Amino acid sequence: MTSKAKDKTNDGEIGRRSLKADGGASSLPVYHQLTTILRQQIKDSVFPKESLMPSEMQLAAAYDVSRVTVRRALELLGREGWIIRKHGVGTFVAPRSAEPGAGEGRVSGLVENLITLGLETTARLLSYDADAVAPTTVAQALGLDAGARVLRIERLRFYKDKPLSVTQVYLPEDVAGLVPQAAIDDRPIIRLLEGGGVRAQRAEQTISAIPADDDAARKLNVAIGMPLLRLRRTVFDADGRPFEHQVGLYNPDQYEYHMLLSRDNSSARPQWRHIG
Amino acid sequence: MTSKAKDKTNDGEIGRRSLKADGGASSLPVYHQLTTILRQQIKDSVFPKESLMPSEMQLAAAYDVSRVTVRRALELLGREGWIIRKHGVGTFVAPRSAEPGAGEGRVSGLVENLITLGLETTARLLSYDADAVAPTTVAQALGLDAGARVLRIERLRFYKDKPLSVTQVYLPEDVAGLVPQAAIDDRPIIRLLEGGGVRAQRAEQTISAIPADDDAARKLNVAIGMPLLRLRRTVFDADGRPFEHQVGLYNPDQYEYHMLLSRDNSSARPQWRHIG
Repeated sequence: MTSKAKDKTNDGEIGRRSLKADGGASSLPVYHQLTTILRQQIKDSVFPKESLMPSEMQLAAAYDVSRVTVRRALELLGREGWIIRKHGVGTFVAPRSAEPGAGEGRVSGLVENLITLGLETTARLLSYDADAVAPTTVAQALGLDAGARVLRIERLRFYKDKPLSVTQVYLPEDVAGLVPQAAIDDRPIIRLLEGGGVRAQRAEQTISAIPADDDAARKLNVAIGMPLLRLRRTVFDADGRPFEHQVGLYNPDQYEYHMLLSRDNSSARPQWRHIG
Repeated sequence: MTSKAKDKTNDGEIGRRSLKADGGASSLPVYHQLTTILRQQIKDSVFPKESLMPSEMQLAAAYDVSRVTVRRALELLGREGWIIRKHGVGTFVAPRSAEPGAGEGRVSGLVENLITLGLETTARLLSYDADAVAPTTVAQALGLDAGARVLRIERLRFYKDKPLSVTQVYLPEDVAGLVPQAAIDDRPIIRLLEGGGVRAQRAEQTISAIPADDDAARKLNVAIGMPLLRLRRTVFDADGRPFEHQVGLYNPDQYEYHMLLSRDNSSARPQWRHIG
């Protein structure tokens, strides 16, 4: 295991690139950048659980950073429970840190469904603006004119007392009345709309990855530049009219998107279908 | 412009019959597929900005789908701002494509499907190791013992000469023989397996966001620490046996994951279902 971990270091699976050089571009503190890379590699079993990690000197050389930077990264990983530092022996990957495919300890799935199914989360209302100007992409998604006014609801959702996501929900005027500020609780906003008689039929959803800006980083308690999962969703009623657009930013350490696919072999061109 | 657009439609850049053949189950996947295809073609300027789109009848004929299906696709593209429908005149590609923040110029969808439907990408084989040690998470996903040997195929996929994704495909010994190095082309590996008689039935897929390590950053030509979209997929056969595990890292500037959801209101606990 030891030599394997060392080999991983030396075969360049982790780097020979200077984090300093890229640190500016990605605006990440160097030690944090090293921490996120090492954490991910432990999760991905590049460093198998219980194996001996490369030495501070090896890591400093591999990433062209100071040993102080390496020490800060290892201290942080130690506090997070990913590694165990044994004085005079070395640093070992913690026994239970290797991540199963499904994402150990993470919320995994479509959050609205999980909440409906009983996942206990709490939502903190950050802002409620009944007269917000719809951003261009939101106006387009909702079929509104540029500069149209919408109800904008921003909430921070917690799971096990940790920030899971920060979401912006945009509602056109005609349904906004169904969601007075006083009615907002921990449930998804769409449940309030449905309670008011709106029938959602389908939604278009797009998943991307973006770096946390200072605002999202502060709210989700992650470092600026840390990757976040972004879910954009436009919800349509039975008449094909869009009545809700939402943008959710998720902390990938707390959340991952899980889905089932079914293989359609009925044609000469087999394809994957989303199910579940 | 018009005739060019027509030609593009009629030359079957996205193949004929594939939509109808795959749409047997429900009309929604067909309509969704057509929307995805047309959206991608607008993004790719197959239909140039401000050009006249083919008529509903032409599109219906080109893709062998009903005009109702075409109309639903065009209505959605209109709401998304990709096209402008002028009554009595025709449908025009919008001067500036919609969703600048949400995917202009990006590949949008499930890549294997898009390739099957005709999206032109090229795949460069980076490594082929018939005797690779399965990483812990891969062994777990494939139901193999820790340290089991697998065929590991790493490829870099390009779209319009830009790196789109870097993927690792892991195959257990018993199916590895179906994918000799010489047989690997631009197609998804699963097509080779299916060509060899393997029947894929379903897959578990997890989407996350991770920082690019130095290896992925170099291959995808992004800065270390920049967010990447990670898709993990385990494919099962009809007997529920996993026979392929793949990990794909996508550059979010080139790619986003797009899907269609359907609202199931049949119970007291309405939920989103993945379709399309």
